[in-house]
Amino acid sequence: DGKLKVFTLNSNPELAHEITNHIGIEMGKSSVSRFSDGEIQINIEESIRGCDTYVIQSTSSPANEHIMELLIMIDALKRASAKTINVVMPYYGYARQDRKARSREPITAKLVANLLETAGATRVIALDLHATQIQGFFDIPVDQLVGVPILADYFEGKNFDDVVIVSPDHGGVIRARKMADRLKAPIAIIDKRRPKPNVAEVMNIVGNVEGKTAIIIDDIIDTAGTMSLAANALVESGAKEVYACCTHPVLSGPAMERIENSKIKELVVTNTINLPEEKKTGKVTMLSVGELLAKAIIHVHEQRSVSKLFD
Amino acid sequence: DGKLKVFTLNSNPELAHEITNHIGIEMGKSSVSRFSDGEIQINIEESIRGCDTYVIQSTSSPANEHIMELLIMIDALKRASAKTINVVMPYYGYARQDRKARSREPITAKLVANLLETAGATRVIALDLHATQIQGFFDIPVDQLVGVPILADYFEGKNFDDVVIVSPDHGGVIRARKMADRLKAPIAIIDKRRPKPNVAEVMNIVGNVEGKTAIIIDDIIDTAGTMSLAANALVESGAKEVYACCTHPVLSGPAMERIENSKIKELVVTNTINLPEEKKTGKVTMLSVGELLAKAIIHVHEQRSVSKLFD
Ligand SMILES: Nc1ncnc2c1ncn2[C@@H]1O[C@H](COP(=O)(O)O)[C@@H](O)[C@H]1O
Ligand SMILES: Nc1ncnc2c1ncn2[C@@H]1O[C@H](COP(=O)(O)O)[C@@H](O)[C@H]1O
Repeated sequence: DGKLKVFTLNSNPELAHEITNHIGIEMGKSSVSRFSDGEIQINIEESIRGCDTYVIQSTSSPANEHIMELLIMIDALKRASAKTINVVMPYYGYARQDRKARSREPITAKLVANLLETAGATRVIALDLHATQIQGFFDIPVDQLVGVPILADYFEGKNFDDVVIVSPDHGGVIRARKMADRLKAPIAIIDKRRPKPNVAEVMNIVGNVEGKTAIIIDDIIDTAGTMSLAANALVESGAKEVYACCTHPVLSGPAMERIENSKIKELVVTNTINLPEEKKTGKVTMLSVGELLAKAIIHVHEQRSVSKLFD
Repeated sequence: DGKLKVFTLNSNPELAHEITNHIGIEMGKSSVSRFSDGEIQINIEESIRGCDTYVIQSTSSPANEHIMELLIMIDALKRASAKTINVVMPYYGYARQDRKARSREPITAKLVANLLETAGATRVIALDLHATQIQGFFDIPVDQLVGVPILADYFEGKNFDDVVIVSPDHGGVIRARKMADRLKAPIAIIDKRRPKPNVAEVMNIVGNVEGKTAIIIDDIIDTAGTMSLAANALVESGAKEVYACCTHPVLSGPAMERIENSKIKELVVTNTINLPEEKKTGKVTMLSVGELLAKAIIHVHEQRSVSKLFD
């Protein structure tokens, strides 16, 4: 009773296997396949009655497929009498649809929270939710881990002389501040302004970057538009070199091309989203959150506070 | 207040437009598109405050995409203060996952029912649910329409001399019986048996088909394995010719090839599922459920019983 069982779905099996290796257990036995018409077929292939179950699934692209896999898996675990169903979402898809930016829009991040609870999730473990408010969308416990320490440790190893941590917008300043504290560096902020309607935005830099190694940090890099423009603006303002980093490498559409053509020297990401081979170019460095998530699972399972993991 | 508004999503816009044409109203204005990373972006582009809204969406392949579109649309309608949100699902995906056939399987048809209610659906209008029990999966009203009259009318127009209606399995006998009553024809049943384990199934025909025009009827034709074998068995048993019909043409995987190579003379289906052009071959006849669904919507909107539509 209360035995720990970890299951993987199809969004990021590599990360899931890293997690079970760190914990030192076998991967839970399940088959997640497709019927001829594309409907998801799931079968759990070992008894999990009374177990504490953990399902590893990033709801990265294709988000809808990955969400439905997760919901159906939760349903199967519930009907197979799991004691707890802990959903480990290294990347939480639809997190940017977290408010009505216009009239008559959905709030899909809240919808997804409701769907997970309806299916039967009893707890969520997530990493760098785009908005911390998403925790409040749930009526079940949500543990939020952060990627900053992993990214900061990597840059610490580089022993740069003179570093400045750059937030690509005003929403990201708290994250940049955390990174700066760890690296004992100052911060700068990109202040995007549109001088007049229908005129291109201007990237204004608040803070001193002259002669420094600039590290831009964001939670998500998607089409990399802001990120590549920011890098170029930093170089124009006298930065010696520019690194970019984020927790979640969505990297859709023109992202890779923009990064390759930008002044970004290296893009450092984590493996919350499984990058396809063609995106693992020379400029991209991928750090693992496997150990962090393994520790979080053990902490939760042993009913210890996860906040200890941030110290 | 209580104004009727119909919206379409992306699974079957042709059918949705047929429906609004029959009702004699404009299609509700909404945009259903994708962000760069594939996440669904929905915006309702007219006020629907206090309206009775109807969303037309078959959760046909790709089922997961179509389910998520539907859930997000329901969320948007709810937040835009719709008075009622009526979900019109000509085809209900995952209907075959309606029970645990093995241990530790999900019951996805029930999960989908819960998801629709959680999102905010207030009523469901469906057509030939694979199992009538699915109505009971919902705590909101479910109107179930049937395709038999449309299929029967078509065959009636052919004025066959001597017809027999064939159920491809024991589960389909009630449907075959309904069709037979309409055409004043006898029925026959395909009795699949496996003589020994690991030996191919034998198609045994219960009833007289000799010299008759056989019409096989099912609710769903998916890979068409049973259907094409049944057709050949009927011809071997002396049937003069064989027609096949169903409400929902899933037609996945080898279906089209099997039908083309089988003894089936004509396959008659409805447009609950939008067939891609390459599946509209010479053997396939598609009948429309547009008028039936339009009538159902008007009946529901005017608070008249939908069961009248079956007389
Ligand atoms: N998958 C997505 N890709 C791009 N933009 C999105 C996505 N989901 C939501 N948004 C939009 O992003 C904005 C919120 O992003 P942010 O200001 O960074 O929180 C809103 O206007 C959303 O409509
Ligand atoms: N999309 C699907 N394609 C093929 N078989 C399915 C599908 N969904 C469920 N099933 C299986 O179909 C069986 C139920 O079909 P039926 O006996 O016709 O009600 C169960 O064994 C299900 O596991």
